[in-house]
Amino acid sequence: RESDPSAAEMDSRGTGLEMLFANEPERHPSLRVRAARPCNAEAAPESLLPYVTPNELFFVRNHLPVPVIDADTFELAVEGPGIPDDFRVSVTDLKTKFPPTSVMVTLQCAGNRRAEMHAVKPVKGLQWESGAVSNAVWTGVRLRDLLAAAGYTLPDLSSAELPDGVAHVHFDGAEGYGASIPAEKALDPRGDVLIAYEMNGEPIPRDHGFPLRAVVPGHVAARSVKWLSRIALSDDESPSHWQQRDYKGFSPSATLETSDYSRAQSIQELPVQSAIVFPRPGDAVVPDKDGCVPVRGYAVSGGGRAIYRVDVSPDGGKSWIDADIVRAPDQPYGRHWAWTQWEARVPVAAAISASLSPSAAAGSSAASDAEPVGKITLVCKAVDSSYNSQPETFEGIYNVRGVLVGAWSR
Amino acid sequence: RESDPSAAEMDSRGTGLEMLFANEPERHPSLRVRAARPCNAEAAPESLLPYVTPNELFFVRNHLPVPVIDADTFELAVEGPGIPDDFRVSVTDLKTKFPPTSVMVTLQCAGNRRAEMHAVKPVKGLQWESGAVSNAVWTGVRLRDLLAAAGYTLPDLSSAELPDGVAHVHFDGAEGYGASIPAEKALDPRGDVLIAYEMNGEPIPRDHGFPLRAVVPGHVAARSVKWLSRIALSDDESPSHWQQRDYKGFSPSATLETSDYSRAQSIQELPVQSAIVFPRPGDAVVPDKDGCVPVRGYAVSGGGRAIYRVDVSPDGGKSWIDADIVRAPDQPYGRHWAWTQWEARVPVAAAISASLSPSAAAGSSAASDAEPVGKITLVCKAVDSSYNSQPETFEGIYNVRGVLVGAWSR
Ligand SMILES: [Mo]
Ligand SMILES: [Mo]
Repeated sequence: RESDPSAAEMDSRGTGLEMLFANEPERHPSLRVRAARPCNAEAAPESLLPYVTPNELFFVRNHLPVPVIDADTFELAVEGPGIPDDFRVSVTDLKTKFPPTSVMVTLQCAGNRRAEMHAVKPVKGLQWESGAVSNAVWTGVRLRDLLAAAGYTLPDLSSAELPDGVAHVHFDGAEGYGASIPAEKALDPRGDVLIAYEMNGEPIPRDHGFPLRAVVPGHVAARSVKWLSRIALSDDESPSHWQQRDYKGFSPSATLETSDYSRAQSIQELPVQSAIVFPRPGDAVVPDKDGCVPVRGYAVSGGGRAIYRVDVSPDGGKSWIDADIVRAPDQPYGRHWAWTQWEARVPVAAAISASLSPSAAAGSSAASDAEPVGKITLVCKAVDSSYNSQPETFEGIYNVRGVLVGAWSR
Repeated sequence: RESDPSAAEMDSRGTGLEMLFANEPERHPSLRVRAARPCNAEAAPESLLPYVTPNELFFVRNHLPVPVIDADTFELAVEGPGIPDDFRVSVTDLKTKFPPTSVMVTLQCAGNRRAEMHAVKPVKGLQWESGAVSNAVWTGVRLRDLLAAAGYTLPDLSSAELPDGVAHVHFDGAEGYGASIPAEKALDPRGDVLIAYEMNGEPIPRDHGFPLRAVVPGHVAARSVKWLSRIALSDDESPSHWQQRDYKGFSPSATLETSDYSRAQSIQELPVQSAIVFPRPGDAVVPDKDGCVPVRGYAVSGGGRAIYRVDVSPDGGKSWIDADIVRAPDQPYGRHWAWTQWEARVPVAAAISASLSPSAAAGSSAASDAEPVGKITLVCKAVDSSYNSQPETFEGIYNVRGVLVGAWSR
């Protein structure tokens, strides 16, 4: 198989490449670092509780060193039919010559929850738990407005057909990363694709793409290219390694050797996902007088699909209750780009009792006054607005790169 | 719980309501009738093999008796802001005053494969096997063109916002059925919603909506209203029983009594689905010299999402091979309204051997010259273009009405 040109393995090589990382930004100590160089760090469970994730707590997923960019001189190149060859736009132009648009978008790594799949059967990749996801308000210029200003003739939206010759929009990052998205998404006014310059009302922090980031709502975060330096309209997908030889899904039987990247399709929209955030696995919980404990988590789907329901089980999936869900208001149908948070008061008393064998329970109460300690398996699963459900286990969706890890959260 | 105003239970009442069914059309004998009055009949397995289903083999799902309609005098009412109160359009007008559009659309009943769920745990509803799905080319008028001609001011597509006051489009059938779809879908030129008057190049047969049917690609067939007699733009969903008190999804723990229809969301886009069509359960298959048998089936997802992969297993899900998939060409990204058919040569020899215990195999070959007969479990599961996967079992998606039955096909 091909070598991976990303710096993901630089750490272990120990060849002095550390100098490339001399200019990394400072990071919040609560971030849970899964790889130091390049920085890959997930949001702590506590950081997943605010509906909008503060910038410094937002998960960091970098493929290469963070570039040092002077926003005053930085220019974004735009290439495509009708666009002059040397077209460039400055950050100031983007901020002053276009109407600003703000969109709340949850970004999730393709490998979020990979560690859970790895625990079932080993996969290759960063050992993300369930914190490779965060939610922010992004402000910037609509991609279609920029393309029109650059000279590209936008397709007639009242026609059902896209014009020939542009099927993908490429995004290149100043640090060397690249990706593309389908033109249908890029050019759709309701696709809400932004060239963002602010994150939660502040200039985008260096770790998240300063000064410019493509933000592609409803798609895997890998398409929301940071340090955006070039946009290109094309017939084909990006030739980037990460578009061609990474971020694709394979069958459970494909190995690193047999995975045929030329046959598999790029991950764009993500499937339905949810996770329990609290309590954490192994946490001791004490039921209230009604025998219930509070359980909290998030759920999110791709393609702007809303979360319709989150089911939570106290007994490994034998019984379920509907969680109460919270989501940002004013998300139109088909444009639910922000995650859903949920909370349930889960009746656990029966499951705890059932987990105590009669003899164990009797022995415990006979031997001491301490409450018996039962062990239960909390589960959550979400349903999105296409009524897609999460698969039960990791075996059926196993893939050796450990992406698309959307099995029930236990 | 409320009584069901549909005629689904008329058969068993035996109260002379048969006279309502005096004018039913003749039906092809290959259709597998699940309820006689109203007619609910699925396509035979053989009928699922042509990519385009012949009209007479297309599954029939009627909620009420088939109305007798004179197309020469029939008129479709259209109601909404800007539309004159008495606006009507004739079938001839639709055929002659608007450009015809043809779209290939697979329609699937919400309860397709319900019998498989019922076998795991009983559900209420028609006992569909995997033939409540078919594929046809529908020709008619784009809904948005009709609405514009009627006087409705179409929303500015270059704006990200829909105008206030129209959130749903209602469809009423001449026989009494009704449903609605979100305005975003109805008004999207790339949503391809049609007011159809032809099915596979012929006038729509009576069982399928003669003379007019709303065809809503990518949505549950229950929204593609037959014998379409009224279209209405509205703030709210259709008040119809079938929109309000049917065709919604519930958690596995909800009962007929506790299902809260006011809280649950209507089924619109369907989740990813697939089924093995041949061999049938219990069929004897003889492996070829390479130890393989051919396995065929279909896969389809909602919302225009393409099928990216179909995995087929000879051993109940322990190993998988990629099926070869066939789909209609020229379906743009996000508009894969037609199903995928697939075929795989599945290596079954090892699974057959494994199913024979050593003693059984030895006994068999000692006792006779007959080949030992093994029993294997073929499985298929599909992945769509949002990388949604089918859940493994029916337990996790169980719902007492038996809709959204998309577990692995075994
Ligand atoms: Mo990622
Ligand atoms: Mo249906």
